[in-house]
Amino acid sequence: MNALIVFAHPESRSFNGALRTVAADALSRLGHHVEISDLYAEGFDPLEGPAHYECRNDATVFSPLGEQRHAFRNDTIAPDVRREIARLERADLVILQFPLWWHAQPAMLKGWFDRVFLSGGLYTSTMRYDRGYFQGRRALLSVTSGAPETAFGRGSRGGDVDTMLWPIHYSLHYVGFTVLPPFLAHGVQGHGYAYSSANEFAERLEAHKRRLESRIENLASDVPLRFPGWKDWDDDGAPRGRLAARGRSLEVT
Amino acid sequence: MNALIVFAHPESRSFNGALRTVAADALSRLGHHVEISDLYAEGFDPLEGPAHYECRNDATVFSPLGEQRHAFRNDTIAPDVRREIARLERADLVILQFPLWWHAQPAMLKGWFDRVFLSGGLYTSTMRYDRGYFQGRRALLSVTSGAPETAFGRGSRGGDVDTMLWPIHYSLHYVGFTVLPPFLAHGVQGHGYAYSSANEFAERLEAHKRRLESRIENLASDVPLRFPGWKDWDDDGAPRGRLAARGRSLEVT
Repeated sequence: MNALIVFAHPESRSFNGALRTVAADALSRLGHHVEISDLYAEGFDPLEGPAHYECRNDATVFSPLGEQRHAFRNDTIAPDVRREIARLERADLVILQFPLWWHAQPAMLKGWFDRVFLSGGLYTSTMRYDRGYFQGRRALLSVTSGAPETAFGRGSRGGDVDTMLWPIHYSLHYVGFTVLPPFLAHGVQGHGYAYSSANEFAERLEAHKRRLESRIENLASDVPLRFPGWKDWDDDGAPRGRLAARGRSLEVT
Repeated sequence: MNALIVFAHPESRSFNGALRTVAADALSRLGHHVEISDLYAEGFDPLEGPAHYECRNDATVFSPLGEQRHAFRNDTIAPDVRREIARLERADLVILQFPLWWHAQPAMLKGWFDRVFLSGGLYTSTMRYDRGYFQGRRALLSVTSGAPETAFGRGSRGGDVDTMLWPIHYSLHYVGFTVLPPFLAHGVQGHGYAYSSANEFAERLEAHKRRLESRIENLASDVPLRFPGWKDWDDDGAPRGRLAARGRSLEVT
């Protein structure tokens, strides 16, 4: 199997960097080929904008989706995006390694979505969701957060992680990936939050590493997250049948 | 009143650009002072990283939160972040104008959160949520999306907008803002999606502009979104009392 780890942290010696290495090593030991997109180190530009389109579809008004489709059709895709697409096309498994900043991925990784998943190339109005480009490939978020685990969940101080990660998970589903349940490492900042000592903190980090290693070794038994697909929607994109009924009953609760 | 519009689109002549102008004009007509952060035009750098910290707390390993706290304490905040903080401090109302890209804000605006809301400066472990720095100030998301309105909602093809915007809304709540219900303009791409003609499409855009204008004129009657606050959590950040019970009953449904 080919695996791609997309690493989105400015510091290689961070705990995120350590988890990236743990995942890469575990995959290699299992005989898989591992490639790493180190977005900061490679200087990936997260800003979608006119600077990336030498050959414009419309030189007067910049429309991101129009320019993406034009660049794809004319094979004038920016070199960094071209490199990321080639890496994705080689990968059977994609792991996104990042810290939760402001209840989401860092701008660097957000921009990787904005620029790499080209309209007209990696998706079209009919090539999406369970008919998406990356059908049959798996994706996994590996996420760190500074707050303690007790602070996460519905109504909790830190908020609900499933809600927080939904925009990223659904975007991966949008381009066809089978999305695995996220790997979460809580309380990894050096704050001492909820830890009695530096030693206990270090032990917690080691435990996270061992959990990730074990998770990687057992990926085959993962049960993917479930998202609605084309059969669940009517022509307007509204839910039909059981899903629609369930939506209504939830709103009444 | 002072209003700040944070504009996060690469094209000033886009529909997002038009909505920015509609909001600014409507606020000015009402006698308010309007300032605009045009993130792309002003070259805001969305990437949190060592490049912004001349005077490091730890020159060997870059820790974003540690460096933010250090820069705040030592008054060595990067000029672009300093400018954005000054604008926020002047503002009674903050409007974020952006397109939905991959179920979230563009990387540019995500990076504005990553870099501007300084740890140790604009929030601390005790200065958050309903005790946050920006208490008493209001924030409003003004968001465009390409898909038709029918495709949004729980279980719908486009997904649930409240879930999609939750990470941004909760981040604004985190730093103390009173968050108003979002202004949503669906179906604004030039795709012709769900429109019988170019004329119908243009009329729809005009209708969105008039809706935003009217919304701005009636902001005083807005009922803010409700989020949990300190009284709702125990010392570990877990929900207590009614909230916890409601959380459980929702899971059973």
